[in-house]
Amino acid sequence: MKPIPVAVLGATGSVGQRFISLLDNHPWFTVVALAASDRSVGQKFSDACRWVLNEPMPEYARDMVVVSASPDSVQAKIVFSALHNEIAKDLEPQFAKAGAAVCSNASSYRREEDVPLLLPEVNAEHIQLVKIQRQQRDWSGCILTNPNCTSTGLTVALKALDDSFGVKKVFAVSLQALSGAGYPGVSSLDIIDNVIPNIGGEEEKVEWEPRKMLGKMADSKIQLSDIRFSAHTNRVAVIDGHTVCVSVEFAQRVSPEDAIQVMRSYQAPASARDLPSSPRPAISVREEADRPQPRLDRLTGKGMTTVVGRLRRDPLLDLKFVVLSHNTIRGAAGGSIYNAELLVNENLL
Amino acid sequence: MKPIPVAVLGATGSVGQRFISLLDNHPWFTVVALAASDRSVGQKFSDACRWVLNEPMPEYARDMVVVSASPDSVQAKIVFSALHNEIAKDLEPQFAKAGAAVCSNASSYRREEDVPLLLPEVNAEHIQLVKIQRQQRDWSGCILTNPNCTSTGLTVALKALDDSFGVKKVFAVSLQALSGAGYPGVSSLDIIDNVIPNIGGEEEKVEWEPRKMLGKMADSKIQLSDIRFSAHTNRVAVIDGHTVCVSVEFAQRVSPEDAIQVMRSYQAPASARDLPSSPRPAISVREEADRPQPRLDRLTGKGMTTVVGRLRRDPLLDLKFVVLSHNTIRGAAGGSIYNAELLVNENLL
Amino acid sequence: MKPIPVAVLGATGSVGQRFISLLDNHPWFTVVALAASDRSVGQKFSDACRWVLNEPMPEYARDMVVVSASPDSVQAKIVFSALHNEIAKDLEPQFAKAGAAVCSNASSYRREEDVPLLLPEVNAEHIQLVKIQRQQRDWSGCILTNPNCTSTGLTVALKALDDSFGVKKVFAVSLQALSGAGYPGVSSLDIIDNVIPNIGGEEEKVEWEPRKMLGKMADSKIQLSDIRFSAHTNRVAVIDGHTVCVSVEFAQRVSPEDAIQVMRSYQAPASARDLPSSPRPAISVREEADRPQPRLDRLTGKGMTTVVGRLRRDPLLDLKFVVLSHNTIRGAAGGSIYNAELLVNENLL
Amino acid sequence: MKPIPVAVLGATGSVGQRFISLLDNHPWFTVVALAASDRSVGQKFSDACRWVLNEPMPEYARDMVVVSASPDSVQAKIVFSALHNEIAKDLEPQFAKAGAAVCSNASSYRREEDVPLLLPEVNAEHIQLVKIQRQQRDWSGCILTNPNCTSTGLTVALKALDDSFGVKKVFAVSLQALSGAGYPGVSSLDIIDNVIPNIGGEEEKVEWEPRKMLGKMADSKIQLSDIRFSAHTNRVAVIDGHTVCVSVEFAQRVSPEDAIQVMRSYQAPASARDLPSSPRPAISVREEADRPQPRLDRLTGKGMTTVVGRLRRDPLLDLKFVVLSHNTIRGAAGGSIYNAELLVNENLL
Repeated sequence: MKPIPVAVLGATGSVGQRFISLLDNHPWFTVVALAASDRSVGQKFSDACRWVLNEPMPEYARDMVVVSASPDSVQAKIVFSALHNEIAKDLEPQFAKAGAAVCSNASSYRREEDVPLLLPEVNAEHIQLVKIQRQQRDWSGCILTNPNCTSTGLTVALKALDDSFGVKKVFAVSLQALSGAGYPGVSSLDIIDNVIPNIGGEEEKVEWEPRKMLGKMADSKIQLSDIRFSAHTNRVAVIDGHTVCVSVEFAQRVSPEDAIQVMRSYQAPASARDLPSSPRPAISVREEADRPQPRLDRLTGKGMTTVVGRLRRDPLLDLKFVVLSHNTIRGAAGGSIYNAELLVNENLL
Repeated sequence: MKPIPVAVLGATGSVGQRFISLLDNHPWFTVVALAASDRSVGQKFSDACRWVLNEPMPEYARDMVVVSASPDSVQAKIVFSALHNEIAKDLEPQFAKAGAAVCSNASSYRREEDVPLLLPEVNAEHIQLVKIQRQQRDWSGCILTNPNCTSTGLTVALKALDDSFGVKKVFAVSLQALSGAGYPGVSSLDIIDNVIPNIGGEEEKVEWEPRKMLGKMADSKIQLSDIRFSAHTNRVAVIDGHTVCVSVEFAQRVSPEDAIQVMRSYQAPASARDLPSSPRPAISVREEADRPQPRLDRLTGKGMTTVVGRLRRDPLLDLKFVVLSHNTIRGAAGGSIYNAELLVNENLL
Repeated sequence: MKPIPVAVLGATGSVGQRFISLLDNHPWFTVVALAASDRSVGQKFSDACRWVLNEPMPEYARDMVVVSASPDSVQAKIVFSALHNEIAKDLEPQFAKAGAAVCSNASSYRREEDVPLLLPEVNAEHIQLVKIQRQQRDWSGCILTNPNCTSTGLTVALKALDDSFGVKKVFAVSLQALSGAGYPGVSSLDIIDNVIPNIGGEEEKVEWEPRKMLGKMADSKIQLSDIRFSAHTNRVAVIDGHTVCVSVEFAQRVSPEDAIQVMRSYQAPASARDLPSSPRPAISVREEADRPQPRLDRLTGKGMTTVVGRLRRDPLLDLKFVVLSHNTIRGAAGGSIYNAELLVNENLL
Repeated sequence: MKPIPVAVLGATGSVGQRFISLLDNHPWFTVVALAASDRSVGQKFSDACRWVLNEPMPEYARDMVVVSASPDSVQAKIVFSALHNEIAKDLEPQFAKAGAAVCSNASSYRREEDVPLLLPEVNAEHIQLVKIQRQQRDWSGCILTNPNCTSTGLTVALKALDDSFGVKKVFAVSLQALSGAGYPGVSSLDIIDNVIPNIGGEEEKVEWEPRKMLGKMADSKIQLSDIRFSAHTNRVAVIDGHTVCVSVEFAQRVSPEDAIQVMRSYQAPASARDLPSSPRPAISVREEADRPQPRLDRLTGKGMTTVVGRLRRDPLLDLKFVVLSHNTIRGAAGGSIYNAELLVNENLL
């Protein structure tokens, strides 16, 4: 296969950096452009970017010259968007119109009826919406979105349970990592020896996005799942990795053992199972009393695996458990890349 | 009033230190003995103790010589117990038998039918159990307990709501401070850039203790409240102050505004309202979007006030909110001292 | 004494907040105005300010309406300046001209020959420069400055040693707190699990400011001390309290015991010894192997005392030790207030 | 080449874990035994060990059964020792006598005249001491040691400078990571919002070990370097990576540019240059104003490279700079493995 030229929009931000890191030596994709705001345009990437990841900046990116985030400056079949929502809203359709497949981490188009909100191991078939999208909007390109980082691990875990037992109600309380707020993001004075018990706009996303992803597709439309959610979101002093405490009510009686068994054996749909970024395994279930923990488990399956632990009975609903997912890998850049791979694999590029 | 001689058992530990700090210049009590394990006995307190509080060790304690934790070595009307549970189980009755009022932070006797589990602003009348306890056990002293630190703020907030609206079900997810695990307690390698999603034995306490404290007393017995609880407890990188995310179902429809109003106007029973350690106010309700926060709010009312924020509708139950309480002041040493003051005020010493 | 009306400029920032907190119930001063940037003017202080201190916002400040930082809007005998340097440079002389005594934490005028750079326990006599300043500049008010927060504790410790033994050379490596960078200041992603080994402009200040403060005054001029300094400054994950590792060469042989003795007995000059903010003691010397520590020792003497520990021989120079000082109390707001008190005490207001 | 069977002693501790992680897929070595204390013997490694590294436990180790740390239970040509010093003192000679090459991270034998204290990129020729050692002690095996983690990066940087310019005096102030204290090691209550300004025994090591490594070998003996050191060591809230602030006096005048040039071009001796664990490059010099930083730079060269930054003039000595080295990779397990590779390469196994 000939390498597919790709670009990163919003390359200097923390999610942009994660894209650049994950695309280093990607078997299918070659980064041909790094785009960022006017302030950075024309500079070498290594000068323009304050790198915040643990792993060093990949060599290939250091000397690339940052370009403007417009279809004219960026010649790529796939553009990965780490743009802020307001900017994404304006720019992403321009790229789609110009023929690029936009794999976006922004929330701007997640709720559009013809835009897939995609976790390939959960709802790979939703990618077919791209055809409708192209028809309706007269685009040669398209927009694919990945969900909010907190919804990500939660939805993967619920998918396995919902398929087998039918999920009715979900309580979710998150302890979210700092990288989710971007850079500079959260002030150190706000989080050292502290917790911030609110993240603006996050609870609404967690209460809605899983319903679209767990919805069935019929007549080229997605029927929202009628699972009901209550979410409470918190920021804690963790660099990467969102932890979510979940309580679930099922349509039937379910034992912790059954739930463990179902999650352990859960597999992505065939089309999403063997892609370069496919999580291996899709879900890892830990049986220790105190796992998953973000620092120790966020890199499971190269950061793409959803890690679940503490499966036990809930005195009010049926079961409770803890879900961990790497918020800037599975929950952001890695998720968008996985979406792009599915698009290629389905010959929808 | 003549100063009442008091002692601290387990004086060198982190809760013991908090007792010593809070008893500095107490208007009613004078510390006459600091007791700890054999390793420390005979040493000056300042040599025996690795002090871990932000505020300096009080002068009065520095040169006191640590004594053994036995009724023979400790001559005090009130003994504050910061002992480990297994040791408390054995030693506290010896003190009670010898005539001391034991105000204990240990969990050993919390579930005994004739032992008050006490938050004076919630269930001051339960202190009357002391009379039964003395009769049944033939003690001249007594044992009073304060609840687990996570149950503390939660129960104060629920009390106000339960009185007015009737609480039926409660979801509680905690983000707990490190000081709750004692010293050395949690390894730094376990909590920097991390969350531990479990605290051994804690969830059972949070699901049971509030039911005793919110129970009615009839015929000298406490009828457990039939509120149903589900708890999930986490450890986070915070020094002091437990944050709890709570969702509540009521017996009737309740608006956030009504709940705020009821919590704001909540007062301790008359006998517990004007004691030296009475929280002022009992509950502080914050209306900012991102409060309470442990570092900023844990010292509200000198660490004795329960701080509530983010009152809002819950999509599954009725309301959700956040509760913060200082775990080693209101939730441990300060709570025990408040209990002792109530005992004195009720002429039950 | 009639209360002296004072104001805080830059009231919403982190140093401004510290001024407000320390001026609560001050025996001599009453806050009559809180001034901040245009964005905040006209708002209630509690709405305009994102409070970041551990202790709650004082009641007196909550409902004050923020005014503009100009002599027209601020009627006060003393103005405490927590302004940014560039703004301070412009505004502070306007206040001095209009008759106010400006006690400034900004660095803009520290190097001016007729402006005292003041630590009252070190160089109280330098306040006499105010007379020269008024003459030369035709001001009825004046400007007093306090040094950079890292220079503060270092200079106090060196003063005691220099008086007795003559200091020749000083190596100083700092581990500085986050509050020194203001709010939002340092991003959490830059400091959790990390160190930043540089603080812009800080090393130059630490290498120069102590020389002015330790300089002798002769003929109404200050002769810079000829002690030579090398400084290396680092940012670490500490909320408050700067730690400095110091190695010193003396003009004569000095034992650790002699140095301890000299620091323990060090006293502020008589005019600065019994002011409301005088540190009690001026220097606290700890003999434990692992003190001072910022979290445990920064509040020594209400945050005004310089804490020294680990006095020992240095294999290259003569002695080495550790100095700790609370950077926003002794090293900023508390220092400015102490300066103001000295001004009043010397009848120079 | 046939895989060489190796073992890890002290396998469950934090350095032991790092050995296990770094030996995963090693091109020359195969782990055949994991040894630990009696408490763990007979258990599966995944049950016996509380894993604390960011990266997951390697698959190969999970099901290995922990054996006793004695030559009888461990059949390996090379044993990597992560034992505590007192235990190492007793056990390591038993292994050496039984024919194993002991590559030790313990400090017990570092000062022995016939035991190499080895950083291959610095003093590869010191490995020849092994021959003397075998002769004198009548061992078929041997003991090789790697230095204290703080000395490691410091010595690599000094070697490059000393070779070119002659180093006379060195000031070194460290900001050390928590993993250096093992697990559980430092209590979270001691380090969150705090610094510990002392690490027991560390300063003596930093002031002596570099002198052995920078010493010349003549007549089968090492002549200690006469560079003079002063060290101050601190613990900070960093998981991995020791930062050291260094000031150096040379025998001649040296500009920062010359020093950068010399460090950049520094290479390991030929025998140590192309081993599997050779750092690539030996030294990385950063020119940004605020690097190196532990979280961002500790994994440079897979954690084996010494990272230097902030080269600038020192007002007292000649130059100052910052050195960063990964304390459990380059400064411990990775260093020992690199030593073992040199031993194999020199046909001394």
